[in-house]
Amino acid sequence: MTGSDFERDTAVQRDGDSWTADLQPRWNVGNNPNGGYLLAIAVRAMQGEAGRPDPVTVTAHYLSPPAEGLVTIRTQVIKPGRTFVTVMAEVLQGGRERVRVLGAFGDLTERKGPTRVSARPPDIPPPDECVSLAHLTRHAGRPIPEIMNRFDLRLPADSPWGRPGEGDPFEITGWIRFRDGTEPSALSAVAFADAFPPTLLGSMAAGWVPTIELTVHVRGRPSPGWLLGTFRTRVLVDGLMEEDGELWDSEGRPVALSRQLAMVLSR
Amino acid sequence: MTGSDFERDTAVQRDGDSWTADLQPRWNVGNNPNGGYLLAIAVRAMQGEAGRPDPVTVTAHYLSPPAEGLVTIRTQVIKPGRTFVTVMAEVLQGGRERVRVLGAFGDLTERKGPTRVSARPPDIPPPDECVSLAHLTRHAGRPIPEIMNRFDLRLPADSPWGRPGEGDPFEITGWIRFRDGTEPSALSAVAFADAFPPTLLGSMAAGWVPTIELTVHVRGRPSPGWLLGTFRTRVLVDGLMEEDGELWDSEGRPVALSRQLAMVLSR
Repeated sequence: MTGSDFERDTAVQRDGDSWTADLQPRWNVGNNPNGGYLLAIAVRAMQGEAGRPDPVTVTAHYLSPPAEGLVTIRTQVIKPGRTFVTVMAEVLQGGRERVRVLGAFGDLTERKGPTRVSARPPDIPPPDECVSLAHLTRHAGRPIPEIMNRFDLRLPADSPWGRPGEGDPFEITGWIRFRDGTEPSALSAVAFADAFPPTLLGSMAAGWVPTIELTVHVRGRPSPGWLLGTFRTRVLVDGLMEEDGELWDSEGRPVALSRQLAMVLSR
Repeated sequence: MTGSDFERDTAVQRDGDSWTADLQPRWNVGNNPNGGYLLAIAVRAMQGEAGRPDPVTVTAHYLSPPAEGLVTIRTQVIKPGRTFVTVMAEVLQGGRERVRVLGAFGDLTERKGPTRVSARPPDIPPPDECVSLAHLTRHAGRPIPEIMNRFDLRLPADSPWGRPGEGDPFEITGWIRFRDGTEPSALSAVAFADAFPPTLLGSMAAGWVPTIELTVHVRGRPSPGWLLGTFRTRVLVDGLMEEDGELWDSEGRPVALSRQLAMVLSR
């Protein structure tokens, strides 16, 4: 764990009936901590409460953005099952609830049953032939959110992100890993599921795209190496949009499916 | 509301701090009430608590199957927002929690913002040229779950359901409406999102496919008439699978997106 920004910055400490964590501004987008980072912290407390390692399905409702600094996480086991332990978490700061999370935790390595994957990872050039998102963002004259310095995120040079064709979904597909060399884990898959910029950024005059609800299904523990992520929005209606994500590991296995409901606020 | 099985059978009554409902066996699959029916009942209590009509996003964790008869629903407003009211619900029977639900409620007719839909409804023959699921089920020698008598559900004669091609997803696509003529609503969209049989039924020797978690985003109030539903499973790993759903109304508008995580149990 030494040397890993992500492990250190998502650390939680048990404090009686609840947990504390210290939100670090290096995971900020603008002045607010990123939603995936917040969820990862809640999930660490929930893992501790559940006594099970894998966030098989977690749903976060984002209530009000916290600032950097201390948060309290209250956890409660809703159902201690043999297969899954269902846990709720409340993330509080300044006496105000910031995030509510509901999740089922288990051990994916103990699961037994049929496997059939018809989904295929997106077909893009290898990371070495892709362009860094930081470079693209600088090039577009947009500010680089602090969190982007934590990730190495690379897109194909001809990425349709920011300029979808007529009738095409808003979409962003690329490679992602931690910049400090930390290998991906089931926990970090939760953060990676909200680490890409919004699908419609650049295509629409959106000032901010706050997440209302994010659900992540972790389907496998990632192998070391790059993750391949693809995020797509097909239904934007009256400013509400879904963002459907897939994360694939370096062995081509699906490790997480995500969906969020977000709101497009104009500048 | 008179004459509508769905309205009558999902009725909730305020009882001090909580609500009561009476689960009717006519929405059973085998001996257990269907998950979409249970969620619709919780959503009615949550609508009452929120004072907002539309379940913009609701997530249910299914903890233990209830029997027919009385349930208590405890509701709590987590955040009374201007745009959305976030509410939690616990469905209890016999002193045991059966379902935990987290949701954000709003009024979809008051939303303002950009619209761009690149998703398209599935292209299948009209209902009159499709085959009733009840007929197909009888033909396959399978028992007809009681709930299927509440819906008129029709599939194309050449539906790939139950016999996906090599490398294809498990998929079921068809028309659905209430058999008693009740028109669809935002509430019933929640039930329709879990009304189709499992995508992999017939393709795999699965005895039961219990839902662990179901999230439904209601994106629009359906127009009167048939709904067109399509449900797909692309990632089945070690007996865990997602089921992604879309519901389209008679005017070709997307009214709900759903995703569930379910577990394949062998016979």
